[in-house]
Amino acid sequence: MTETYMDNAAGTRLLPEVLEAMLPYFTRDFGNPSSIHTCGTVPRGAVEKAREQVASLIGAAPQEIYFTSCGSESNNQALKGVAWANEKKGRHIVVSAIEHQSVLYAARSLARMGWEVTMVEVDGGGFVDPDAVASAVRNDTVLVSVMHASNEIGTIEPIREIAARVKEKGALFHTDAVQTAGTIPVDVNALGSDLLTLAANAFYGPKGAAALYIRKGVRIHSLIDGGIQERGRRAGTENVPAIVGMGKAAEIAARDMQGRIADISRLRDKLMHGLEASIPKIVVNGDRVRRIQGNVHISVEAVEGESMLFSLAANGIYAASGSSCADKALKSSHVLTAIGLDHALANSSVLFSLGIDITETDVNKVLEVLPPIVAKLRSMSPLWDG
Amino acid sequence: MTETYMDNAAGTRLLPEVLEAMLPYFTRDFGNPSSIHTCGTVPRGAVEKAREQVASLIGAAPQEIYFTSCGSESNNQALKGVAWANEKKGRHIVVSAIEHQSVLYAARSLARMGWEVTMVEVDGGGFVDPDAVASAVRNDTVLVSVMHASNEIGTIEPIREIAARVKEKGALFHTDAVQTAGTIPVDVNALGSDLLTLAANAFYGPKGAAALYIRKGVRIHSLIDGGIQERGRRAGTENVPAIVGMGKAAEIAARDMQGRIADISRLRDKLMHGLEASIPKIVVNGDRVRRIQGNVHISVEAVEGESMLFSLAANGIYAASGSSCADKALKSSHVLTAIGLDHALANSSVLFSLGIDITETDVNKVLEVLPPIVAKLRSMSPLWDG
Repeated sequence: MTETYMDNAAGTRLLPEVLEAMLPYFTRDFGNPSSIHTCGTVPRGAVEKAREQVASLIGAAPQEIYFTSCGSESNNQALKGVAWANEKKGRHIVVSAIEHQSVLYAARSLARMGWEVTMVEVDGGGFVDPDAVASAVRNDTVLVSVMHASNEIGTIEPIREIAARVKEKGALFHTDAVQTAGTIPVDVNALGSDLLTLAANAFYGPKGAAALYIRKGVRIHSLIDGGIQERGRRAGTENVPAIVGMGKAAEIAARDMQGRIADISRLRDKLMHGLEASIPKIVVNGDRVRRIQGNVHISVEAVEGESMLFSLAANGIYAASGSSCADKALKSSHVLTAIGLDHALANSSVLFSLGIDITETDVNKVLEVLPPIVAKLRSMSPLWDG
Repeated sequence: MTETYMDNAAGTRLLPEVLEAMLPYFTRDFGNPSSIHTCGTVPRGAVEKAREQVASLIGAAPQEIYFTSCGSESNNQALKGVAWANEKKGRHIVVSAIEHQSVLYAARSLARMGWEVTMVEVDGGGFVDPDAVASAVRNDTVLVSVMHASNEIGTIEPIREIAARVKEKGALFHTDAVQTAGTIPVDVNALGSDLLTLAANAFYGPKGAAALYIRKGVRIHSLIDGGIQERGRRAGTENVPAIVGMGKAAEIAARDMQGRIADISRLRDKLMHGLEASIPKIVVNGDRVRRIQGNVHISVEAVEGESMLFSLAANGIYAASGSSCADKALKSSHVLTAIGLDHALANSSVLFSLGIDITETDVNKVLEVLPPIVAKLRSMSPLWDG
C-alpha cells in the first residue's frame, strides 16, 4: 500500500540532504563547541553558520537568533523570560484564544505566579482583531503574544497590524511562527515582531532544534540558566547536529519557498474543493484565502473525527484531528471552540496538512477514499439525519 | 598526527552502534510520537523503550524518567520546578558551592524571585559534609541539590549520607549525576535521591537528550509548559532520534560498565602518577580515591592553564582547563576557588578526562609531551623561581 502523509503540521519528513549535512557532527566533528581546542572549532563554526542561515530566513541579524530545543521551549522562553525581566513595568500579558498550548499554558503558569493574563477572542475565521488587541494593552502590559498562523485551522493572522498597534502602546510583541517560518515569507522587520518562534521540524529539518528571535535590546531572562552558550541566554551544550540541520533546512526553505507555495497551494485547493464537492454537510474551518498553503481543516457533520482518521489510516492516508500536542481524550480543541464550533462539530474534524512530497495522486486518493468512508460512518451514526 | 581526545567531561564521542540505532528515526520512522496514526506508533514505542533503558541504568521505574534536551535543562527543571510547586512549604533551597553552573544560576534566578539560597562550602578535597548540609536544612527548606561528582575535579560526593540527612529533616533531595550516571553504578534508591539529572552525551550517547528522574509523588511544576508530552511535565515534540540514542547508550553503558571502569581507572592512575613523577610542583585536585575514573585534574605552579592547553593541542592532545560551560575569560573556576586554590594556581589547571577510546599509547604520549612543555613555559614565566 502506498502511504500518503498529510500530517505535516505535526512534523515534516527530514530532507536527505539535511541529514547528510548533520552526519559529520555526530561522528568526526562530535566535539563541544565550547571547547577551546580543535575539536571545538569546527562545531562552533557550524553552529554560527546555522545561525546565519536561520537569521537570513527571517530577515534577522545572526546575533538575534537563539537556538533552543523545540518550539514549545522558545514560546516558554519568550513569555516567561520577558515577563520575569520586565516586572518592574508591570505584570500583565495578552495572548489570543487560539495560541498553541505552549503559549497558553506558559501564560497560565505566569498567572499562577501573580501575572494577569488577558485573552483576546477571535472571529469565526480565526482572526484576531488588531483593535481588540490594542484595547487589551494597558500601561502595565509587558508582552502580547499572537501566533502568525494557526497550527490547526491554518488562518494567517494580521501580525503586521497587530504588532504596530501593540508597539504604539509601548508593549513588546511576540509571535509564534512555527507554522509559517520556512513555509511562507517571514521577515521580522516587516512584521514588526520583537520576538519570534520558529522550529526546524516544521520545514523539513530535524526534531530537537528550534530558535527564538529576540530583537536587539529586548530585556529577557533565561528559562534555562547556566553556562555561557547562546550568549548566556540559553545554557546547555548545543545540539550541534540538529542545529546544523536547522540551518541547512532554512537555507533550502528560502531557496525553494516560491515553488513549494505554488505546488502545495494548488494541491490544497484541489483537495479542499474536491472534498466540498463530494461530501455533503462539511465545513472548511479557517479563512479560505489568508491560510497557510498546506492546510485543509474540515468538520464533517455527524461523524467522529477519530473514526475518519482510523479509516483513512487503514487506506494508508495519515492525517490528524488537530494539534498533536493536545490531549485528545479530554476535550474539544480550544481553537475550534474559539471560532464558534459546537462540541459535536469540533469533534468531527480532520486536519490534512500537505507537505512537499504530496502529489496529485495522493490528493486523488483522498478524494476517492474519504467520501465512501463518511457515507458509511454516517449510515451508522445516530446523529445523522441526512 | 594521531589525535588524543582527553576532554570527555565536555562531551563524549558518539558510539557507532548508537548512531546506527538512531538513524531510522530520522528517515523511515520520522513521525511525531503524539500522532495517533501509524507514523506515530513506531516512534512512540521507541521513546518508551528508551525510557525503560534509561530507567534500568539508574534503578528507576520507567514512569519516573522524563526526557529533556540537556543536563542544564534537567537541573533547571529540578530546582525551579520543585521550588515553584512547593512554595507553600517554604522558599528556601540549599546547594553546594561546587555545583555546575546550571544549578548555581538556577538557584540565583530563584533568589531573584524571592527564594532564599544557602550555599554549603566544601573541604580541600571538594567534599560536601553531610553534617553541614543537615545544619543548613530548615523547616522551610524545600530542596537540597548536591552533585554526585564534580565535572571539574572528579570528587565523588557522599550522596547516600547527604540524602539520608536531608530526608530525615523533611526536604527533597536532587543530585546532578551527569558525570556519574552511565559511568559508575548509580541507583536512585540506594542513593536515596528524589530527583536525579543525567545526560546522554556523558556516556557516548548523542547531544540533545538528557533526563530528569523524578521519584513518584514528588510535587513539581513544568519549566516548559504546553502539550501532553512526558505526561504533561515537559512539553514539546520529542527529539526521537536523540532519545533513542540515549536509551541505546544507557543499555551499552550498563553492559560495559565494569570493564570500562577497570580500563579507564588503570590508565587514569598511570597518567596521574606519571605526571606527578615527572613534573615538579604540581598538585592533583580532588580526592585521590573517591574520584570518577576518567578524571585527572592538575594545577601546575607558575604556568598558565591555557598555554599548556595550546601546546598540548599542537601535539594533538585535547584537554580542558575546566568546565566547558564556564566563561573562561572572566574569572577562576568557582570549584577551584571553593577547594581553596588561589587565583594563580586555579588558572594553572588542566583537566584530562579520559574516555573509552584512550589507550596506553595516548597516556605515554601525554607523559612524554607535557613535561618539556611545562619546563619551557616555566623558563619564560616571571612567576617561576624553581
